[in-house]
Amino acid sequence: MALGELAAALGRACEGDAGFAVRGVAPLESAAPGDLVFVRSQRYAAGLARSGAGAVIAPPGVDTGGRPTIRTERPDLDFARAVARLLGAAPPAPGIHPTAVVAADARVDASAAIGPHAVVGARSVVGARSAIHAGAVLYADVRVGADCVIHSGCVIREEVAIGDRVLLHPGVALGADGFGYTFDEAGRPVKIPQIGRVVIEDDVEIGANATVDRATLGETRVRRNAKIDNLCIVAHNCDMGEDVVMVGQSALAGSTTVGRGTIIMGQAATTGHLAIGAGSFLGGRAAVARDLPAGSRVWGAPAVDERLWRRTVAALNRLPEALRRLRAIERRVGLRQAGAVRAQRAEAERRSSGEPEPEE
Amino acid sequence: MALGELAAALGRACEGDAGFAVRGVAPLESAAPGDLVFVRSQRYAAGLARSGAGAVIAPPGVDTGGRPTIRTERPDLDFARAVARLLGAAPPAPGIHPTAVVAADARVDASAAIGPHAVVGARSVVGARSAIHAGAVLYADVRVGADCVIHSGCVIREEVAIGDRVLLHPGVALGADGFGYTFDEAGRPVKIPQIGRVVIEDDVEIGANATVDRATLGETRVRRNAKIDNLCIVAHNCDMGEDVVMVGQSALAGSTTVGRGTIIMGQAATTGHLAIGAGSFLGGRAAVARDLPAGSRVWGAPAVDERLWRRTVAALNRLPEALRRLRAIERRVGLRQAGAVRAQRAEAERRSSGEPEPEE
Amino acid sequence: MALGELAAALGRACEGDAGFAVRGVAPLESAAPGDLVFVRSQRYAAGLARSGAGAVIAPPGVDTGGRPTIRTERPDLDFARAVARLLGAAPPAPGIHPTAVVAADARVDASAAIGPHAVVGARSVVGARSAIHAGAVLYADVRVGADCVIHSGCVIREEVAIGDRVLLHPGVALGADGFGYTFDEAGRPVKIPQIGRVVIEDDVEIGANATVDRATLGETRVRRNAKIDNLCIVAHNCDMGEDVVMVGQSALAGSTTVGRGTIIMGQAATTGHLAIGAGSFLGGRAAVARDLPAGSRVWGAPAVDERLWRRTVAALNRLPEALRRLRAIERRVGLRQAGAVRAQRAEAERRSSGEPEPEE
Repeated sequence: MALGELAAALGRACEGDAGFAVRGVAPLESAAPGDLVFVRSQRYAAGLARSGAGAVIAPPGVDTGGRPTIRTERPDLDFARAVARLLGAAPPAPGIHPTAVVAADARVDASAAIGPHAVVGARSVVGARSAIHAGAVLYADVRVGADCVIHSGCVIREEVAIGDRVLLHPGVALGADGFGYTFDEAGRPVKIPQIGRVVIEDDVEIGANATVDRATLGETRVRRNAKIDNLCIVAHNCDMGEDVVMVGQSALAGSTTVGRGTIIMGQAATTGHLAIGAGSFLGGRAAVARDLPAGSRVWGAPAVDERLWRRTVAALNRLPEALRRLRAIERRVGLRQAGAVRAQRAEAERRSSGEPEPEE
Repeated sequence: MALGELAAALGRACEGDAGFAVRGVAPLESAAPGDLVFVRSQRYAAGLARSGAGAVIAPPGVDTGGRPTIRTERPDLDFARAVARLLGAAPPAPGIHPTAVVAADARVDASAAIGPHAVVGARSVVGARSAIHAGAVLYADVRVGADCVIHSGCVIREEVAIGDRVLLHPGVALGADGFGYTFDEAGRPVKIPQIGRVVIEDDVEIGANATVDRATLGETRVRRNAKIDNLCIVAHNCDMGEDVVMVGQSALAGSTTVGRGTIIMGQAATTGHLAIGAGSFLGGRAAVARDLPAGSRVWGAPAVDERLWRRTVAALNRLPEALRRLRAIERRVGLRQAGAVRAQRAEAERRSSGEPEPEE
Repeated sequence: MALGELAAALGRACEGDAGFAVRGVAPLESAAPGDLVFVRSQRYAAGLARSGAGAVIAPPGVDTGGRPTIRTERPDLDFARAVARLLGAAPPAPGIHPTAVVAADARVDASAAIGPHAVVGARSVVGARSAIHAGAVLYADVRVGADCVIHSGCVIREEVAIGDRVLLHPGVALGADGFGYTFDEAGRPVKIPQIGRVVIEDDVEIGANATVDRATLGETRVRRNAKIDNLCIVAHNCDMGEDVVMVGQSALAGSTTVGRGTIIMGQAATTGHLAIGAGSFLGGRAAVARDLPAGSRVWGAPAVDERLWRRTVAALNRLPEALRRLRAIERRVGLRQAGAVRAQRAEAERRSSGEPEPEE
C-alpha cells in the first residue's frame, strides 16, 4: 500500500513521498527500508535516527530525517490502525473441514470457516466470515455472530451467545458452571445448579485460558468492546461494562457489576455482589471489598483510595524506624522501664496469636 | 412436576395449591407465572411481592402473597435441591461417537457417552453413565468412575484415577508433571521426574482450566466432595480433605495437606509442606506460610489470625497520620531538632534500600 | 538396572552389593524391597530405618542399615538423574495417527509421533523423536525441534519457534495475541495488532494452562532451560533469561527482561518494561514495579528488599499496639485531650476516604 493512500485512510497528512510503498511494519531497532515505524514522542528521535525504517508515523515537530512521514497527534493509535489495514490476517478459507463434526441442525454461514476436528453442536449458529479454529468445541444452542475468531482450545458451553467481531484466544472457556454452593445440615458443600447463560457482546476480546462462567439464574454479560486478558475469571452473574479493560489473572467474583470504561489491572480482584462505578481504575493486585463510586482509583488489599494507599505504602517502609523512635520517646517521658517492657512485650505476643517474634 | 410432589421429595411442607405445576425456575425479577423462585429471608419480601413468580420456597414467616409455597428453614439448600430435581441435565446419549478414538484395550461402559474426537487411551476405563465430551483426552491407564462428566478441553494424563459423580469443567488438566527441580553444580535447574499419580475421589468438582499435578512419588489426592474453582492449582503431593472449598485462582503449593471442610478463598495460596487444620478459613488473598491448627481463620500476606489482621488493616490506614503525630511528640519532648531530623531521615533512607522517598 | 551400573552412570561410588537389581523408585514410607530411595540428610535416617527400601542414595555419613548405597553430596540431584535413567517415559510410537490432520506442506520427521486428532498446519515442522499428543494444534509456520513433548490441549499459534527437548504440559497457549491496546478519541480501547512472534529455546518446560504471548512487533523469547509452572503468564515482548524458574500463577507484564537464573515465586508479578537483574529472587506474591539490580531479593507489594520487608512485616503486626502507646504518650506530654481526640479522629476519618472506622 502506498503511504499516501494509508494516510488518507487514516485521515492524516502525509509529508514527503506519498508514493512510498509500505512493505511491512517493524520496531525501530529492526526495521528495514521498506518498513513503516512509529515514534510516540521526541524521546524516541535518536532511535529513529539510527533506524533503517523507510517511513514513519510521528507527532508534529519530531524530526524524521527526511523520511516520508504521516503526521498525527496520536502516533500509537494511527499505527495500530495502519497495521490493521496493512496486515489484517487473511481469514481461513471458508468452508467446513471434512473432519469437523457439525450437527445436522446447526446453521453455519457459507462464508464461515470451521477447522479440522472442530465441533458445532445441535442448533448452534455460526455467522458470516467467522472462523472456528481446529478443535474448538461449540456445545448445543450456541450462537456466534459475524466476523468472529474462535481459536483452538476454546470451549463454548450450551446457550452461550456471542456477538459480532468477537475474538477468543486459545483455551477460553465460556459458560462453565458458576462456582456456587450452599452447605447441608452436616456442613458439606452442596452444588447450586447453574442454569443461567453467558452473553458476550460485539467487539469483545478474551485472552488465552480465561473463563467466563454461566449465571446461576439469569445471565453473565460482557458488554461491547470489553477486553479481557489471559487467565482472568469473570464469575457467574457478573455484568462487565462496555470498554472495560481487565488485565491478566484478575478476577471478578460473582454478581459484580463493572461500569463502562473501568480498568482492572493485573491480579486485581473483587469480592462478590459489588458495583464498581464507571471509569474506575483498580490498580495491580487491588482487592476490592466494597462498592466504588464512578471514577474511583484504588490500590491495595483491602483496596483504598490511591492517595491514601501511596501515603500508607511510603509510611509502611518507615514503620520499623518509627517503632524505635516510639521506644525512645517512652523512655524519655517515663512510660517505659526495663521490667515494664518485658511485660508489655509478652502481652503483645499473646495478642499477635503466635506470629513469629519480630526482630528489633 | 407438581409442587406438592417436589415438597415431598424435599421432605418439606407445602402451603396452598400442591397441584401447582412447576414449569421452570427463575430469579425474582424475571420469573413468569409458571416459575418457582426462592427467598432467603424477610429482606427479599418486597422483591417477591413485585415478582411474577407462581410459586415460592421461603422460610417460615415470610409473606408469599398467597402463592403456593414450600416452607423450609433452608430455602437456598432446598432450592438447590429442587433445581437439581427439576432440571437435571439430560446426559448425552450413550455410545461412542464414530470420530472418537478409543484404544482397543480400553473398557467403556455401554451406558457411557464418548463425544466426537474424544480420545480414550490404552487400558483406560470409563464407568457407567459417564460422559466424556467432545475432544477431551484420556491418556493411558486412566480410570473414570460412574456418572462423571468430563467436559471438552480436559486432559487427563496417565494413571489418573477418578471416582464417581466427578464433574470436570472445560480445560481441566489432571496429572501434569509436578513442578519439581533441583539445581546442578552450575546452579541450573534440573527436572526431578514426576512419576507419582493423581487420585480424585467421589463427588469432586473442578473448575475450568484448573490444574491438579501428579505427585513426584506417591500421589496427589483430592478427597470426597471437595470443590475447586476455575484456574486453581493443586500442586504435586497435596492431600486436599473432604468437603474443602477452594475459590478461583487460589493455589496449594506442593505437599500441602488441607483438613476437611476448610474454605480457601480466591487468590489465596500456601507455601509448600504445610498442614492446614480441618475447618479452617483462608481469607481472599491470604498467603499462608506455616501450619495452621484446626479452625483457624487467617487473612493477609503473610497470613495472620483474622482478628489481628483486622486490627492491623485498620491501624495501617492511620499510619501516615501516626507518623505526623510521632514527629510532633518528638519536638515536644526534645527528641527532634531540624538538624537531627535530616540526619535521621538520611539514615532511614539508607536502610530502606532505595525505596522511593515517601511524601510527607 | 544394576545399582553399580547406575552409580557408574552418575559418576558416584557404590557401597555394598553393586549387583542389586533396581526395580523401581519410591518414597521412604511405601518403598518395597526392589525399590531405590534417597535421603537428603541425617534428619531422614529414622524414616530410612523403618523403610522397606532395598537400596539408597544417601550423603556420606548417613547410616543406611547395610543396604547397597550410592554415596553423593547431592542425593536429590543424583536421585533425579537416576529416576530419569530408570524410568524415562517410553516415547509414543513414531508415526502419524490416521486421524491427525497434517498439512501437505508440513514436514514431520519420520521418528516423530503425531497423536490422534492432532493438527499440524501449513509449512510447520516437527523434529526428530518429538511427540505431539492427541488433539494438540500447531497453526501454520510453527517450528518444533527434536525430542520435544507437546501434550494434549496445547495450542501453538502461527510462527512460534520451539527448540529441542522442550516440554509443554497440557493446555499451554503459545503465541496468542499480546494484550495491547491504545485508546481512541472517545476513550475506548482499540486493539494494537500483535504481529510479532514467540521463540522458545532448548530445554524449556512450560506448565499446564500457562500462556506465552506473541510480541506486538519483534519477539517474545524464553531462553534455554527456563522452567515455567502452571497458569503463569509471559506477556508480549518479554525476554526471559536462561535457567529462570517461574512458579505457579506468577506473571511477567509486557516487555520485561528477566536475567539468567532468577527465581520468581508463586503469584509474583512485574509491571511492564522492567529489567530484572540476573540471579534475583522474587518472593511469593512479590509485586515488582521497578528495575532490579542483579542478585536482588525482594518481597511484598510493592516489592522491597527482603530485609526491609521482614522488618516491616514484623513491625506491622505490632502496629495496633503502637498506636495505643502513641496515644498514651500524647496524654503524658499534653498533646492529647478528650476534645482534641475527637476532632483529630474526625480529621483522620476524612483523610481516610471513607475507609471503615477501625476498632480501637
